[in-house]
Amino acid sequence: MIPSRGYAVQNKNTPLSPYHFQRREPGPHDVLIDILYCGICHSDLHQVKNEWGNALYPMVPGHEIVGKIRKVGAQVTRFKENDLAGVGCLVDACRTCPSCHQGLEQYCENGFISTYNGYEKDGKTLTFGGYSDCIVVDENFVLKISDKLPLSHTAPLLCAGITTYSPLIHWKAQKGQKVGVMGLGGLGHMAVKISNALGAHTVLFTHSAHKEKDALSLGAKEVILTKDENAFKKHANSFDLIINTISATIDLGLYLETLKREGTLVFLGVPEHELKLHPSNLIFKRRNIAGSLIGGIKETQEMLDFCAHHNISADVEVIPIQKVNEAYERMLKGDVKYRFVIDMHTL
Amino acid sequence: MIPSRGYAVQNKNTPLSPYHFQRREPGPHDVLIDILYCGICHSDLHQVKNEWGNALYPMVPGHEIVGKIRKVGAQVTRFKENDLAGVGCLVDACRTCPSCHQGLEQYCENGFISTYNGYEKDGKTLTFGGYSDCIVVDENFVLKISDKLPLSHTAPLLCAGITTYSPLIHWKAQKGQKVGVMGLGGLGHMAVKISNALGAHTVLFTHSAHKEKDALSLGAKEVILTKDENAFKKHANSFDLIINTISATIDLGLYLETLKREGTLVFLGVPEHELKLHPSNLIFKRRNIAGSLIGGIKETQEMLDFCAHHNISADVEVIPIQKVNEAYERMLKGDVKYRFVIDMHTL
Repeated sequence: MIPSRGYAVQNKNTPLSPYHFQRREPGPHDVLIDILYCGICHSDLHQVKNEWGNALYPMVPGHEIVGKIRKVGAQVTRFKENDLAGVGCLVDACRTCPSCHQGLEQYCENGFISTYNGYEKDGKTLTFGGYSDCIVVDENFVLKISDKLPLSHTAPLLCAGITTYSPLIHWKAQKGQKVGVMGLGGLGHMAVKISNALGAHTVLFTHSAHKEKDALSLGAKEVILTKDENAFKKHANSFDLIINTISATIDLGLYLETLKREGTLVFLGVPEHELKLHPSNLIFKRRNIAGSLIGGIKETQEMLDFCAHHNISADVEVIPIQKVNEAYERMLKGDVKYRFVIDMHTL
Repeated sequence: MIPSRGYAVQNKNTPLSPYHFQRREPGPHDVLIDILYCGICHSDLHQVKNEWGNALYPMVPGHEIVGKIRKVGAQVTRFKENDLAGVGCLVDACRTCPSCHQGLEQYCENGFISTYNGYEKDGKTLTFGGYSDCIVVDENFVLKISDKLPLSHTAPLLCAGITTYSPLIHWKAQKGQKVGVMGLGGLGHMAVKISNALGAHTVLFTHSAHKEKDALSLGAKEVILTKDENAFKKHANSFDLIINTISATIDLGLYLETLKREGTLVFLGVPEHELKLHPSNLIFKRRNIAGSLIGGIKETQEMLDFCAHHNISADVEVIPIQKVNEAYERMLKGDVKYRFVIDMHTL
């Protein structure tokens, strides 16, 4: 076994604190990665607090991982020692179901294996995430990372990047289209950058007037202040696609009425409360509501290559791991531009 | 002007009663149709009672019209005297917006002209529907009716037929797919027949055990009794498409969980109350919710030709117009198999 150090929570009421544990010895298809940076995703907070009701403790969070290969298994072909490598939200899947065969492991019909807060394929060994010094992953679930972008800024692409890239590609955001992004946080700021890079006329919906300047500099062409119902009316029937990165409860009808005929509003995050749906907002323009979950391995690699090509990465604040609990508190207040990333050298 | 007789309501509290009014003299592009049969749509009830809040009185309902051409305008090219003809939910549209250009007049961006309970292009003359002896319509909004099917059974195709055909085509119901139909009423029984004719494995969702036998004889291969939550679980993640013809409030999550990855649930009717939506039902399988409204003229003609080819028409109970108020009461109790059609000879 490989000794590993990280930060974990022991139950939903404890802060993150230093934790020693073990990683499996790399098998023939595994790589052992020394973690350099790990982003802090909002879902890390939900999970350490057991807000989704599925927490497994002790929990070492973190699924926005970039690092360097320390060791490769005997049959590994895609990586060699010292290569840069990335790990996202999933570290394995059944590989046999139709979704896996189509490269959509995030929708694995037998359930993918989460990078943390899950079980290994043995069904009993807990998986531990990226708030740690190293990780062992099957090479088929490891991404190649370009050296063109700063690594600390690349880490958030592994979740925030792919979560927004996947629906933008699936629903064909492109030049000539008008794409809305709801919310300017970790996901939202990536959605704005990627949508803009895809050539779409990108518009931010935000309730915070002070985010307008940032949004425009990140690539948005317009900003809709959601406190103003008239602003919605000005954009009636105009959006091809709206990407919702907001977890707060929203007045769904207001947004739906800004979609064109056959436009789609896509949920990426799970709101705390159910929403009210009036089907008339859909019927009279053949509109759609959909949901999208992260992305598969193939598409994640495409996203990383796309971002390297277009010089896109996350706006981050790099912190030492000792400040992770403070970072959580600041995230709850929305005090982050736009992603905290842990520098794992500080461990 | 052309003298016309029919049945109308004078306000939301009065029953339908005989009414004399006038139709416009046919213009160069118009046809004058002697109405033979008119179906009774559930939306007729909503509108005479002003349940949608947009009623215009006096109101002559009816938008499932088949008849015979009495007279054609000087420049009419598609019809001649004595041809069979049909009229559905719309009798004109702007003809200039992108939706109209694409043959999707039902989504006309300037608002289509309703067959009844609307205004003519002059913006002030009320339109009157098919519970009457004749109607004058621009030939471009008149459908060709085959003599292969009984005319009384054809009338409901003009609304119930196209309203279900359009989403089945748009979302590509076909052999190899599993299609659900929610509710076995006027729309539902047409959805079952058309979906089956398209080759899809068609399954009825109903709360009425006594409808099982009918559903199977109409073309459904399975029936899910919606009172049984286990029945939903047996069909988890299996439907490509679900067509919702129910206006009652439903537990949306139960149905969404029966959709496959990327499956779609389509609303055709406006429920009285808003529904509760949990986006997690969408996110984890990239599922969709959508809405669909009747169909355009081109697609309505395709549907009529498809139905004639496949020998599909509505199951109807033909009534004299004097029984129309009684028919409304029976519809409210669900006592109709599956569409009332008024024989206009009885006027």
